[in-house]
Amino acid sequence: MSLSGKTDNPSFVLRGIHDTVYEDRPIPELGPKDVLIEVKKTGICASLPMNIPHGRIGNFVLDKPMCLGHESAGYVHSVGSEVTTHKKGDAVALEPGATCMRCEYCKGGKYNLCPDVIFAATPPFTLGTLCRYYKLPHELVYTLPDTCTLEDGAMIEPLAVGIHSVAKLGKFQTGQNIVVFGAGPVGLLCMAVAKALGAKRIIAVDINAERLAFAKSYVATDIFQPPPPNPNEARPDFSKRAADAMMSELHIETRGWDAIDLVIEATGAEPCVQMGLHLVKPAGTFVQVGMGAPNLVIPMYLVAGKELGVFGSFRYGPGDYPMAISLVARGLIDLKPLVTHRFKFEEAVKAFGVTQNGKDEDGKSAIKCIIDGPE
Amino acid sequence: MSLSGKTDNPSFVLRGIHDTVYEDRPIPELGPKDVLIEVKKTGICASLPMNIPHGRIGNFVLDKPMCLGHESAGYVHSVGSEVTTHKKGDAVALEPGATCMRCEYCKGGKYNLCPDVIFAATPPFTLGTLCRYYKLPHELVYTLPDTCTLEDGAMIEPLAVGIHSVAKLGKFQTGQNIVVFGAGPVGLLCMAVAKALGAKRIIAVDINAERLAFAKSYVATDIFQPPPPNPNEARPDFSKRAADAMMSELHIETRGWDAIDLVIEATGAEPCVQMGLHLVKPAGTFVQVGMGAPNLVIPMYLVAGKELGVFGSFRYGPGDYPMAISLVARGLIDLKPLVTHRFKFEEAVKAFGVTQNGKDEDGKSAIKCIIDGPE
Amino acid sequence: MSLSGKTDNPSFVLRGIHDTVYEDRPIPELGPKDVLIEVKKTGICASLPMNIPHGRIGNFVLDKPMCLGHESAGYVHSVGSEVTTHKKGDAVALEPGATCMRCEYCKGGKYNLCPDVIFAATPPFTLGTLCRYYKLPHELVYTLPDTCTLEDGAMIEPLAVGIHSVAKLGKFQTGQNIVVFGAGPVGLLCMAVAKALGAKRIIAVDINAERLAFAKSYVATDIFQPPPPNPNEARPDFSKRAADAMMSELHIETRGWDAIDLVIEATGAEPCVQMGLHLVKPAGTFVQVGMGAPNLVIPMYLVAGKELGVFGSFRYGPGDYPMAISLVARGLIDLKPLVTHRFKFEEAVKAFGVTQNGKDEDGKSAIKCIIDGPE
Amino acid sequence: MSLSGKTDNPSFVLRGIHDTVYEDRPIPELGPKDVLIEVKKTGICASLPMNIPHGRIGNFVLDKPMCLGHESAGYVHSVGSEVTTHKKGDAVALEPGATCMRCEYCKGGKYNLCPDVIFAATPPFTLGTLCRYYKLPHELVYTLPDTCTLEDGAMIEPLAVGIHSVAKLGKFQTGQNIVVFGAGPVGLLCMAVAKALGAKRIIAVDINAERLAFAKSYVATDIFQPPPPNPNEARPDFSKRAADAMMSELHIETRGWDAIDLVIEATGAEPCVQMGLHLVKPAGTFVQVGMGAPNLVIPMYLVAGKELGVFGSFRYGPGDYPMAISLVARGLIDLKPLVTHRFKFEEAVKAFGVTQNGKDEDGKSAIKCIIDGPE
Repeated sequence: MSLSGKTDNPSFVLRGIHDTVYEDRPIPELGPKDVLIEVKKTGICASLPMNIPHGRIGNFVLDKPMCLGHESAGYVHSVGSEVTTHKKGDAVALEPGATCMRCEYCKGGKYNLCPDVIFAATPPFTLGTLCRYYKLPHELVYTLPDTCTLEDGAMIEPLAVGIHSVAKLGKFQTGQNIVVFGAGPVGLLCMAVAKALGAKRIIAVDINAERLAFAKSYVATDIFQPPPPNPNEARPDFSKRAADAMMSELHIETRGWDAIDLVIEATGAEPCVQMGLHLVKPAGTFVQVGMGAPNLVIPMYLVAGKELGVFGSFRYGPGDYPMAISLVARGLIDLKPLVTHRFKFEEAVKAFGVTQNGKDEDGKSAIKCIIDGPE
Repeated sequence: MSLSGKTDNPSFVLRGIHDTVYEDRPIPELGPKDVLIEVKKTGICASLPMNIPHGRIGNFVLDKPMCLGHESAGYVHSVGSEVTTHKKGDAVALEPGATCMRCEYCKGGKYNLCPDVIFAATPPFTLGTLCRYYKLPHELVYTLPDTCTLEDGAMIEPLAVGIHSVAKLGKFQTGQNIVVFGAGPVGLLCMAVAKALGAKRIIAVDINAERLAFAKSYVATDIFQPPPPNPNEARPDFSKRAADAMMSELHIETRGWDAIDLVIEATGAEPCVQMGLHLVKPAGTFVQVGMGAPNLVIPMYLVAGKELGVFGSFRYGPGDYPMAISLVARGLIDLKPLVTHRFKFEEAVKAFGVTQNGKDEDGKSAIKCIIDGPE
Repeated sequence: MSLSGKTDNPSFVLRGIHDTVYEDRPIPELGPKDVLIEVKKTGICASLPMNIPHGRIGNFVLDKPMCLGHESAGYVHSVGSEVTTHKKGDAVALEPGATCMRCEYCKGGKYNLCPDVIFAATPPFTLGTLCRYYKLPHELVYTLPDTCTLEDGAMIEPLAVGIHSVAKLGKFQTGQNIVVFGAGPVGLLCMAVAKALGAKRIIAVDINAERLAFAKSYVATDIFQPPPPNPNEARPDFSKRAADAMMSELHIETRGWDAIDLVIEATGAEPCVQMGLHLVKPAGTFVQVGMGAPNLVIPMYLVAGKELGVFGSFRYGPGDYPMAISLVARGLIDLKPLVTHRFKFEEAVKAFGVTQNGKDEDGKSAIKCIIDGPE
Repeated sequence: MSLSGKTDNPSFVLRGIHDTVYEDRPIPELGPKDVLIEVKKTGICASLPMNIPHGRIGNFVLDKPMCLGHESAGYVHSVGSEVTTHKKGDAVALEPGATCMRCEYCKGGKYNLCPDVIFAATPPFTLGTLCRYYKLPHELVYTLPDTCTLEDGAMIEPLAVGIHSVAKLGKFQTGQNIVVFGAGPVGLLCMAVAKALGAKRIIAVDINAERLAFAKSYVATDIFQPPPPNPNEARPDFSKRAADAMMSELHIETRGWDAIDLVIEATGAEPCVQMGLHLVKPAGTFVQVGMGAPNLVIPMYLVAGKELGVFGSFRYGPGDYPMAISLVARGLIDLKPLVTHRFKFEEAVKAFGVTQNGKDEDGKSAIKCIIDGPE
């Protein structure tokens, strides 16, 4: 792959519910510290397409046509007059949120909480990376080492979520044990980070046996498929029972070196949150990644009685991209098995459909779908 | 007050639901590193009497007669053969939980999570401090400076809960703003700690106007009485509305130096937890002190989206007693206004009744009731 | 005081060794996020004038005429087109270092380590605040509450050094004991911060009895004047002896609640560093503020054997200005006693002389000299 | 190997300078929570024999005959009446310092700083592990998994020093770069820990080319042999020059992802300390392991100007043994290449000689010498 030399900017744009179109949008103008990237690979985020039919993504309501895509890699096309860190042709990964770098959060090392972030493919913004040319401040453009492919580069974004959740918020250390709820892309990447950090046990929990099988073949040391809920049983009781069954079946202790140090909850499903709080050891850590239903019943007495730390994880912050790239570049995380489907730029609608269904028309499971940039 | 010289050990013992008795129990024998204390003042903990009728306190089920009392101060009566840190007649505060000092938690600086703790007046243990003579390992016996009274000493225990919650888990810093739900003894002590640490605003929330008035007269800078719930409104919606009303009325910002850095939830009530999660700023901290109903509906999307840290607080740990005593001894916290009622040892039943009712027979509000040791 | 409405920009400029001049420099042009301040009060930093004769300040060599001054407050004159946080006439304190907000340090919450900082009155930069009009990005301009004077505002800069050293790096907590070496402005401000944070003992060490007397009258609880070195004694031996004498005289313990938790070294003098490492308790903290001779003999065996944390402190970082302003605004720190001398803009040379001599021509000790902005 | 069933307790005892003897000492009596271990393997610590000729080890002066040895593993011979965590025949590693578990350090999670520690083979104590039977509280006896040999077990002690220095104090993270001064056992184990934690570059510095070659063959990614000092050059100047040469030769950056995040100084030699402070990046960490000359000239201006954290490392603390065992058991650290020499119990004098000389009589380099327990 290489720079196309083309001067159009075809873009895949969401106009409304189930209403997408390809437009030729203007090429962004560069400020002195900006970089223009020709996008070559873009991953599809499961949270995105599922919500298109409703015209909203969490709190975000679509009210203007918006270019989709925010997990991307490509080549540097050109740089602003003051940029010395990048040059034409560099293979790069894109961090899709440009923050103000002036508020208390940006100053204080938590730029992911900047209220003025401009984030790709997130209303009310209208730009996304599913186009030919995308512009970013140079400090959000990360050069990929030779040992990283462009597809790796496109997956640095979700991997950074895993870094942020497991390494930063979860402070995961070698020899610890982790349970990850959800064996989709984010959950799998959290498991991969835990493995790279020296996990002893990596236990994947999902209701989907096929996903669990993949997790086991990828990096999980153990898997657990919770029993179906009993409609006559209160959900908290069910969850306690499921957690007890899991601890018994997998020989998980409540304390000590065979107990669970960290739970990553990457589904947003209430029973998973409940089970996770039962599973984690006293003084352990529970990290909520992403969002499900807004309100959940949780066993708060466990938070108090076990002095748990429950942390929310929102996107990624300083150092997460570099650590993600470093782990991939050095072979400590292998992203390649996650790419199950590849699509041409023109097939974006199909790619979103496969992601949303979790499988393609042949019934083959989809984990991560990657869309090529425009030819 | 002074040592009595008596050789009996009258003890106030709970035998079952609403069934208490005074017994003469044996004086404990000292090991070489133990200290025997003649108890002179004992505070009553609100969480205790409320649960006597049910024969259980949280997870703890009463199955043997148990001496009550765990917030105490007194004089050293005698010391074990190897104790050099204390001497007869020293005024001391008692830390009522003796831990194993061998498990991973005790070694690791979190002895409050020791699974083998022996805690006064907590089933299945049968000892409490509402007696004449109580024995402790010397390191749990803290000498009171001259500027602390014995009543102060008896309140070091609940104050240590406030230290643990606000200073240690909440990492509260000068200039920050705190909201405390619950204006009972623990909530008030959390507010007192926040003031001693240099709080800008201390906002007390309670449904009881009298308690709020006291909080304001004590250390709160602001008070808020939530509106009554609307039976036609879902509780999470009510709580969001109540939080919005409170922010508007008290000019609370969502970010920056006029936003809420720390929420202390000392009621266990679901609407308080919900309101607290709405009130706290992004990257802020929420500490759950004590326990209410086991399962609560909480707006988990706020935990994730604001990257909150939600911590459970359980008792107190290393350094909490010394910091509590230091703050009182140096006049940075005044415990005296909290003692509303005093009882003789023989009046223990009455003292528990007043605590449980929250007021005495004349209708005077009760905050902290103190019971003298046996004469 | 108020805005002058004038259109000149008189500036006090250092051209070379002992060679200063008043120039009329152009008024800076504002970018859309900048603020133009009419400077009204500027404090003189001891480290600055002392080094003028040598034409260098630490690593910084003067090679171009440079406007002096970096501790300033004033009024907002005008704001850039996108600035909504400030308005004409606001009284403000100035943070004098504009950093790139793009490097790993700026992103990571340590902008004081930005290699590309543009810092007032620091070669190779040529701008300083001893002029009428000074420009800053809006996020470095802090509105002063009504309870802060402009002179307070001019001293926020050195106070932020104290915040950074004592509160942030030193993690000082209520009830702890601190030793501060050096009772000049920075040392005194470190003591003031320690007091505001609830210090039990604040021990000032200086070789100048007059400074110590001032420290005692200001915030120190104890003072110590080390004995003169014995020329026949190796310096490390002298320092150990001096530390032992100090511990004996002031009843300082080596461990526990009467031991030294934090040492702030604000002189750069070798015996002070040595004494400090002897004084601090095991697991205690030593913070080196500012710089003296580049190489010092230190008792490294104490660092290892006591597992000390030795931290360097360089300027100030996120949150330091707001905390400094908050402490002054709420009366927890009183800066007024520190201002011993005031000068008109035309008297800048005299102000530097008094600061450098540490006293005025009448022999009155100088702590902080403040120079008015141009009339 | 197995339990001997013997009832004597032959012990290798140091009586004075170069004066050792084998004695039959009484078998220790067990308290209810103690474990009696039959020692099978003991490593020799370089710091120990080197100081025997002087009759002192740092601050520790030998004034009574003392059994040597503190790096040991063996089998459980018997357990006290209350011990449920161990049973006869278990293969175990020994943590040789029994602390009071009552002082502020023991309570606070820093038991390595306990002033009342009883440490094997350290004056004024008289017990060591070079004997048949050694007694410890059960919580200092760590069961070895099947994947750890007894020789591995004997090296857990020095490995725990590496864990403590690199993982705990150094907070080393995957992708970071480390420089370790000293390629003796402790330095090599620090490198091994860094590798297990995911180091990008591990740079060994030593003046001994043979040691460097071993380090490279073991885990170092790079090695550097400093030039010999120039007698006409001040040592700080030499060290700066050597650091500059090293940075140039090894393409080390001063900032960013190719800079040095952590320096471990495991020699105590002044030029190494100086070089290390030059090499480490701003906001980086320098850990001093062990001790050399008591007083060292250091470039303190770098500590301040780069805001370094300089930490002393003393022995090991909570969680260090379990993490060490876990890394070895899971194959993330291979201790076997370090054992260069093995001796029978009767050859202890010879073993100490080889360790002290750094090589055996055939000129073969010695890294770690292991002595068998008595037959």
